[in-house]
Amino acid sequence: MAHGHSSRFHTVGDGSGIEHSDRFTREEVALALRNRGMPLEGLRYPITPSGMHYLLVHFDIPHIEAKGYRLHIGGLVERGVSLSLDEIKARPAVTMPVTMECAGNGRALMAPRPISQPWMVEAIGTAEWTGTPLAPILDEAGLRPESSEIVFTGADRGVQDNNVHLYERSLTVAEATREEVLLAYAMNGAPLEPQHGFPLRLIVPGWYGMTNVKWLTSIEAIDHEFGGFQQAEAYRYQTESGEPGEPVTLIRPRALMAPPGIPDFLTRTRLLEAGRVTLSGRAWAGREQVTGVEVSTDGGKSWSEAVLEAPVGRFAWRGWSCDWDAKPGSYELSVRATCATGARQPDEMWNLQGMGNNACQRIAVVVEERLA
Amino acid sequence: MAHGHSSRFHTVGDGSGIEHSDRFTREEVALALRNRGMPLEGLRYPITPSGMHYLLVHFDIPHIEAKGYRLHIGGLVERGVSLSLDEIKARPAVTMPVTMECAGNGRALMAPRPISQPWMVEAIGTAEWTGTPLAPILDEAGLRPESSEIVFTGADRGVQDNNVHLYERSLTVAEATREEVLLAYAMNGAPLEPQHGFPLRLIVPGWYGMTNVKWLTSIEAIDHEFGGFQQAEAYRYQTESGEPGEPVTLIRPRALMAPPGIPDFLTRTRLLEAGRVTLSGRAWAGREQVTGVEVSTDGGKSWSEAVLEAPVGRFAWRGWSCDWDAKPGSYELSVRATCATGARQPDEMWNLQGMGNNACQRIAVVVEERLA
Repeated sequence: MAHGHSSRFHTVGDGSGIEHSDRFTREEVALALRNRGMPLEGLRYPITPSGMHYLLVHFDIPHIEAKGYRLHIGGLVERGVSLSLDEIKARPAVTMPVTMECAGNGRALMAPRPISQPWMVEAIGTAEWTGTPLAPILDEAGLRPESSEIVFTGADRGVQDNNVHLYERSLTVAEATREEVLLAYAMNGAPLEPQHGFPLRLIVPGWYGMTNVKWLTSIEAIDHEFGGFQQAEAYRYQTESGEPGEPVTLIRPRALMAPPGIPDFLTRTRLLEAGRVTLSGRAWAGREQVTGVEVSTDGGKSWSEAVLEAPVGRFAWRGWSCDWDAKPGSYELSVRATCATGARQPDEMWNLQGMGNNACQRIAVVVEERLA
Repeated sequence: MAHGHSSRFHTVGDGSGIEHSDRFTREEVALALRNRGMPLEGLRYPITPSGMHYLLVHFDIPHIEAKGYRLHIGGLVERGVSLSLDEIKARPAVTMPVTMECAGNGRALMAPRPISQPWMVEAIGTAEWTGTPLAPILDEAGLRPESSEIVFTGADRGVQDNNVHLYERSLTVAEATREEVLLAYAMNGAPLEPQHGFPLRLIVPGWYGMTNVKWLTSIEAIDHEFGGFQQAEAYRYQTESGEPGEPVTLIRPRALMAPPGIPDFLTRTRLLEAGRVTLSGRAWAGREQVTGVEVSTDGGKSWSEAVLEAPVGRFAWRGWSCDWDAKPGSYELSVRATCATGARQPDEMWNLQGMGNNACQRIAVVVEERLA
C-alpha cells in the first residue's frame, strides 16, 4: 500500500513516507497489532491452521450477514447477475491449497524503511480454499467484446492518502478467467471467519495477497484501465515519488526457515544445543515451481543444496530440509530459493512502497554445548 | 513478562528494559507481528471468532500430537494420574464463555514504556471454552494435606532474562479448585488450534491471560511458594527493579469502544459523517461485575452513562452503548468502566513491567458534514 499521510490526519514520521531511523513509529506498531503474521514455527504445517495464517486488513473488518448477502456481476456484460450465498455454494466446488503472501512482506527489512504495515518475513500462509470457479460465472453473464478488465469490490471502506474509498482491485479478463481463480466461501473446511472475508472472497493463486479481495460484493466488467487507488496509486514498484511505476502482480520466489532451537523471548535470537540438527522450512514462487533451495550457516559465504519435498499443490509451497552439524558458536543462518525462470532471491532490495521484498531471510543462532 | 536482556543475546534499547522515546525497537515490532490483538471492530461479536481472539505466545508454539499425549498429575498427591486426551474428553464437559485479557495489555501506552510485547488496548477476546473441571481430577488424585499450590507446566520452552525454562505458573489450591477452572480442549466448538494450546490448556476465568497455561503437560501439587521465572520474576507489579513487587492476578475493570466511522489506513484516526451515531463496545472486570460504563466525547471533561446489556456470561464481558449527536469537528472519545467493588479505570498508570494498565481508551475522531 502507499506511504504518505492524509491532510485530515496527523503526520507520521517526517511525512515523507520513508523512515531513515531503525526505530519504528507508533502508527506502524498499531498496524502490526491489528494485522498478524504467521509465527515461523507454523512452517511445520503443510496447511496453515486458519488462526495462524497471515492477515492484512486495510480498513475495518466489515460485518456481513449471510442472509441477504448478494454478489452482483455487472458492467459490460450481456446479462447482469445477482447471486445469493446459497446459489454460489450450489455451483461446482473446487478445493485448492494456495500459498498467499502479502505484497508488503519484507518491507520493514528495507533501509530506509517505507512506513506502512511493518512486515519482516511472516506475512505468509497456505490454506485450502473452497469455492466456485469465476470463469463460468462471467461466461454465463456474457462478457461483452469490449471488456478488458474485471473490477472486484469489497465491502471494506476507509481512507488512504486522503482518499475515501471501498477496497477495489482489477484483473485483466485473461487473468480473471484463468481456471484456478475462485470465489471462495470456505477456508480449511470451515466457512470464512469475518477477518478472512466472510461470506465470500476472491482467490487468485500466484498473485500477491492484495489481489484476493475480501468481503466481495461486486464484480464489474470495464473497457479501460482501472484507476482505483489500490490499483493505480498503491501496490506499485516505484523508485521515486510521483512516477507511475510498475504494478505489483505475481508472488516472487522465497524460502523461509522455521528457526531451529528455542527462542529468547525478547530478542528472538535462537539458542540451540550442539549436534546434528535438521534445518527445514518451505519455499514458494507464486505461479512458478521452486527448483532449488540453498542454505547457508555462515552468513551467506557458502551455500548447501537442500532436499526438496513435493509441492503441497500447484500454487502452494514445498517443504525443504538440510542437515547441519552445529558446533558451539554464533551463526547467521540464511536460505534462498530459485524458481523455474531462474530467478533467485536477492541479498537485499528496495523500492518506495516496500513491495515484493524477497531478500533472503537471516536468523541469528547461538549454539551451546549444553542448554541450561 | 519481565523486561531486560539476556547476556547470551544482544541488548534491546539501552538494556534497562524501559524506553523513554516514543519510538519502538525492532524487537518490540517483531513481537507484535508474532502475537496478535483483536481488531477493535471485533467488539461487535459477543463471542470473538477464534482467529480474531488475541494471542500471546512467550516462546515457540509447540507441536503436540493428540495420539500419545498424556497429562500427568503428580507431586503431593495420594495417587499419581496420567490421562490421555480421550480420557479427558470422556469426563464431564462444561462450555463457558470467558473474557481473557493479557496482563500486558496497555503496556505500550505507558510512558516511559516497559520494553516487551507492545500492546496498546487490543489484547482481549471472549471465547467459549469447552473442557472438564479440574477440581474433581485433583480430588481423585487425592491432594495431600500439606499441598498449598498447584504448578501447571506447558510444553513451550525458551529463554527469558537468560533463564532457560518451560513455561510454568502456579495457583493456590483454593484458586485451582474453584468450580470454574477448566482443562479445555475446545474453543468456540472446535478443537484448539496449535497456537491456542492444542491439545489441552488451563482456563482460569477472571485471571489475566498468563494464568491460562497452554500446551499443558503436567500438574503438580507442592507445599511451598512456587519460584518459577514466570511466577516470581515476571508478572509482578513493581515500581523499582529488584523489589519483589506484588503478583499479577485478576483482570481489572476495562471498557473498550469499537471505533466509530471509518479508519484512515495509516494513522487509524476515525472519519465520521455528522449525525446521530451509536457508540458501542464491551466492558469486563475479571471476576467482578461491571456496574457502570461512562463515555466522554470531549477528552474526559464530561461523562455520560452508557446503557448496559446483560453479561455474555458470569466471567464474560457485557455490551454497552451510548448515542452521540456528532457535529463537525475533531474529538477525543473515551470510555471507562466501574465494577462492583467500586474500582474505576484510571486516566493513566505505570509500573515497571507494564502490567494491568487499564487506563481509559482514547480514540481520535474527525467528524465531517459529508464524507468524500
